[in-house]
Amino acid sequence: MNKMKNNCYGICFFISVAINILLCIGIYLYIGGARRRDMKQEISWQSSLTLTWTEKAAAEAEAVAAASCSGHGRAFVDRLTSDGQPVCECFNCYSGSDCSVYSLECAAVVTSGDLTFLEPFWIQNAANTAVVISGWHRMSYNYAHGTKMLTELENCIRKLHSIAGNAVTEGRYMVFGVGSAQLLSAAVYALSSGNSSSPSNVLASIPFYWLFRDQTSFFSSKYFEFEGNTNSLQSKNSTNNQDVIEFVTSPNNPDGELKKPVFGGKAIYDQVFYWPHFTPIPEPSDQDIMIFSLSKLTGHAGSRFGWAIIKDRDVYEKMLLYISMSDVGISQDTQLRALKILETTIDEDGKPFFEFAYTKMTERWDRLTSAFSKSTRFSLQNRHPFHCNYFNETRLPTPAFAWVKCEREEDNDCRAVLEAGKIISLSGSRLSATDRYTRVSLTVRQDDFELLMIRFTNLISLENGSLQTM
Amino acid sequence: MNKMKNNCYGICFFISVAINILLCIGIYLYIGGARRRDMKQEISWQSSLTLTWTEKAAAEAEAVAAASCSGHGRAFVDRLTSDGQPVCECFNCYSGSDCSVYSLECAAVVTSGDLTFLEPFWIQNAANTAVVISGWHRMSYNYAHGTKMLTELENCIRKLHSIAGNAVTEGRYMVFGVGSAQLLSAAVYALSSGNSSSPSNVLASIPFYWLFRDQTSFFSSKYFEFEGNTNSLQSKNSTNNQDVIEFVTSPNNPDGELKKPVFGGKAIYDQVFYWPHFTPIPEPSDQDIMIFSLSKLTGHAGSRFGWAIIKDRDVYEKMLLYISMSDVGISQDTQLRALKILETTIDEDGKPFFEFAYTKMTERWDRLTSAFSKSTRFSLQNRHPFHCNYFNETRLPTPAFAWVKCEREEDNDCRAVLEAGKIISLSGSRLSATDRYTRVSLTVRQDDFELLMIRFTNLISLENGSLQTM
Repeated sequence: MNKMKNNCYGICFFISVAINILLCIGIYLYIGGARRRDMKQEISWQSSLTLTWTEKAAAEAEAVAAASCSGHGRAFVDRLTSDGQPVCECFNCYSGSDCSVYSLECAAVVTSGDLTFLEPFWIQNAANTAVVISGWHRMSYNYAHGTKMLTELENCIRKLHSIAGNAVTEGRYMVFGVGSAQLLSAAVYALSSGNSSSPSNVLASIPFYWLFRDQTSFFSSKYFEFEGNTNSLQSKNSTNNQDVIEFVTSPNNPDGELKKPVFGGKAIYDQVFYWPHFTPIPEPSDQDIMIFSLSKLTGHAGSRFGWAIIKDRDVYEKMLLYISMSDVGISQDTQLRALKILETTIDEDGKPFFEFAYTKMTERWDRLTSAFSKSTRFSLQNRHPFHCNYFNETRLPTPAFAWVKCEREEDNDCRAVLEAGKIISLSGSRLSATDRYTRVSLTVRQDDFELLMIRFTNLISLENGSLQTM
Repeated sequence: MNKMKNNCYGICFFISVAINILLCIGIYLYIGGARRRDMKQEISWQSSLTLTWTEKAAAEAEAVAAASCSGHGRAFVDRLTSDGQPVCECFNCYSGSDCSVYSLECAAVVTSGDLTFLEPFWIQNAANTAVVISGWHRMSYNYAHGTKMLTELENCIRKLHSIAGNAVTEGRYMVFGVGSAQLLSAAVYALSSGNSSSPSNVLASIPFYWLFRDQTSFFSSKYFEFEGNTNSLQSKNSTNNQDVIEFVTSPNNPDGELKKPVFGGKAIYDQVFYWPHFTPIPEPSDQDIMIFSLSKLTGHAGSRFGWAIIKDRDVYEKMLLYISMSDVGISQDTQLRALKILETTIDEDGKPFFEFAYTKMTERWDRLTSAFSKSTRFSLQNRHPFHCNYFNETRLPTPAFAWVKCEREEDNDCRAVLEAGKIISLSGSRLSATDRYTRVSLTVRQDDFELLMIRFTNLISLENGSLQTM
C-alpha cells in the first residue's frame, strides 16, 4: 500500500515537474517572441512615422477632407472653427451646418464659368495632386537664375500641348499670367500702336466674353480703345487706315464654335476652351499669340493661372514687361500647384484626364440634346462633327456652355423665361448678343446638372400648355 | 523510510503543483496585459497612421527639406531630378551639385529686396507653417458668398495690425493684391481725375522706389501721368490748379525715414516697411490709403501678396474693380498660404516673430555702424531714436537698407566704388537720387551679411592707403 502510494506521489511529482518545465519553456518562447514582435513593430512604427514637421498639416488636411458634409458640401483647410473643426460650405440648394437640408424649390444656378464637374477626378487622384508647401518655400522674388517663371512648369506645359496636339510651342516664347484675364490685357498693351494720336482699335465678334470690352475700356490707355464688334459695318469702313487689334475666341465663348479673325491684322487668340473635352482638335493652333488657362483646362479657377504662347520676340518682351510692371511676377505658390496638377493631367498621355472630362461632357450634351429635341420653344447652338486628332475619331463638339435661344417671338428675354422655370442663366446681352439668347453652363457639379435637367424637362414638358400655365 | 520518502514526494508534489498554479496565474496576467498593450498600440498606430492621400506629398516635402546642400543651398519641391531627387540651389558664392564649392573671390550681392534673413524663423516654425493643398482645393472662381477675398485672412490681417499697433483698420475697407505692386497701380487708378484733358499728376519725393515712375508711365493712361519728384520747384509751381496724387513711402525706401506728404492732396501711403523690425512704431498709421505686403513683413516675396487699407468707400470700390479687371481676383492658393504664415506671425502677440526679426536687424546695424565709425570715405544715413509702442522702449530705426554715401569728391559713382571692393549694390540713380549714394540690402542671409561685413571692413581698412592701392 505504501509502495503504491509512493509510486503514485513519485509519478505525480515527476508529471508536475514536467509540466513546470514545459510551462517555463513555453513562457520563455512566448515572451521572447513577443519582444521580437514588439521590436519589429517598433521598427515599422519608426519607418512609417518618419514624417515630422509635415504631419500636423497633413493630418489636418485629411481630417478636413474627411468631413462628409452629407455629400452636399465641401470643407477646406483655410476655413475652420475656432477649435479647429471643418466648416461645411454647402452646394447649391443645400444648407445647414452639415449641408443636409435640401431646398425643394431651389433654382439651378448655371451662370458661372466654374468647371466643378472635374472635381471628382482630382479627388480620385488625391495622392498625386496633393502639394505640401513648407513655411520657407521660395521666399525670394526670383527663382534661381533671376527668373520669375518656373522652368519645370514651362516644360510641363509644352509637353501638355504636344500631347493634346492643340498648339505649336516649338520655337515659341511663353509668358505666365494671373489667369488668362491678365494675359489678354498684356497682349493688348504689347500689340498697341504706341501712338496716342492714332490709338489701336480693339475689336471682337459678337457674341464675345465681356472682359474684352470691360477690361480694355477700364485701362483707358492713350494707345488703344475698345472700338466694338467686328460685325458692325461702321467698324469695317472706319478701320481701313487704322490700327486694329482683334480678339478671336476659338472655341468661342459662349457657343463653342471654332473661329477665324474677321480682319487680317493683329489678333489675340483666346483659346482657353481649345481642349479635347470641349471640342475636336483638328490641328495644333499656330497663331501669333495664343492664350490658355488652368481654369478651363483642369478647373482650377481659384488658382488664377494662365499662359500665353507667343511667336514674336518683341511681343513676348512687351508682355513680360507688362506682368513685371503690374505685379512683379506671379505667385510661386500658384506655379508649384499648377505644376502638380498638370503633371497628373499629362500622365499616360493625358488619357485618364481627357477621357474623364470628355465622357462627362458627352453624356451631358447627349441628355441635353435629347431633352431639347422635344422642344420648339428652345433651341441649342448647332453642332457639326469633325475630326479630332487627340481621340482619333470624328466627333461632335461638346462646348462648356449651351447657347440657348428662345424661339417664340414673345420670348425676347430668354434669361427671364428660364428664370421663371427656376434656371438662373446669363443673358445674351452680357455677351453683346440679344437677350433672345441666354448662356447656360454645363460644367457644373453632377448634382447641379441633374437639377438643371429636371428644370429643363419640366419647362419643355409645359410647352404644349398655354403661357398661363407657366 | 518509506514514510519519509512518501512525505517527501507528497510535499514536493504539492510544491510543484503550487508552482504550476502560480505559473499559470502569471501567464494569464502577462498575456492578458500584453493583449491590452497590443490593443492600445493598435489604436495609437491607427491614429498615427491615419494619413493616406497626403502621405506621399508629405514624405516628398520632408525628403526635399532634408537635403542639406552642404548648408549652403536649398532644395524645393517644385524642382526635382527625373528620378525624384532634390536639386540643390546654391546660395551666393557656392556652387556644385551639393553646394560645397566656395568661390573665394566672390562678391557680396546686396541689391535685392529679399528678406531671406527671416528664413531660419520659418524653418524653426516648420510644423505650424506647413500647408497641405489638396488637388481639389477651392476650384471655383469665388469663395462662398461670391467673394474673391478670404474672410479668415482679412480678419487675421486686422488682428495683426492691432497687435503691431501700426495701422488703424477699424471701419476701414481692405483689398488684396498680387503684391503691394499691384495695389500701387490700383490706387493711382482709383484716385485719378477721370478727366483726360486734365490728367492727374503723380509725384514722389526723391529718393523713391522706381516702380512708382516706371509703372505709372507704363500704363500710359489718359487720366494720369508721372510728373516727377515733389522737390522740383517746377512741380510746386505747376501743380497749383492741377490734380495731384502723391506717393508717400513711410518708412522710405531706401533710407528708412518716416515721411510725410509734401502736398496736402491725395496721397497713397506705401507702408510696406512700417513694422517693428525696421522702425519704431510711434503710433498706428491713419491714412486714406495704406499699402502693406507679405514680402516686407514675413519675407514671402515669392507668394506675391499685398493688402491695402482704405478709408473711402468709393476709392475701395474702384480699387476692387481694378483687381477684378486686371485678373479676376488673386490666387486662392496664395491666400491660404498667407493665412498660415500670418497666423504664426501673430502668435503670442507677435513677440517670437518680431523679436527674432528685430534682434537680427539690430545686430546687423550695430556691426555696420561700428565698421563705418572707422570710415571717413563712406557714411550711412542718420538714425535718431524715438519711442516704439510695440517694444515699449525708445530705440533706433533698423532700416532694411543701408543708404551708403561716398563722401570723397572723386567718388561720384558710389556703386562702382563698392563694386571694386566686391560689393554689388544698387546705384542711387535707380531711386532717382545721385550716384553718390548707393543702396545696400541688409536683409540678406546670414552668410551673405558676414561676407558683406568682410568686404566693407576690407574697404574701410584700405582708406588710409592711396587710391592706387584700391
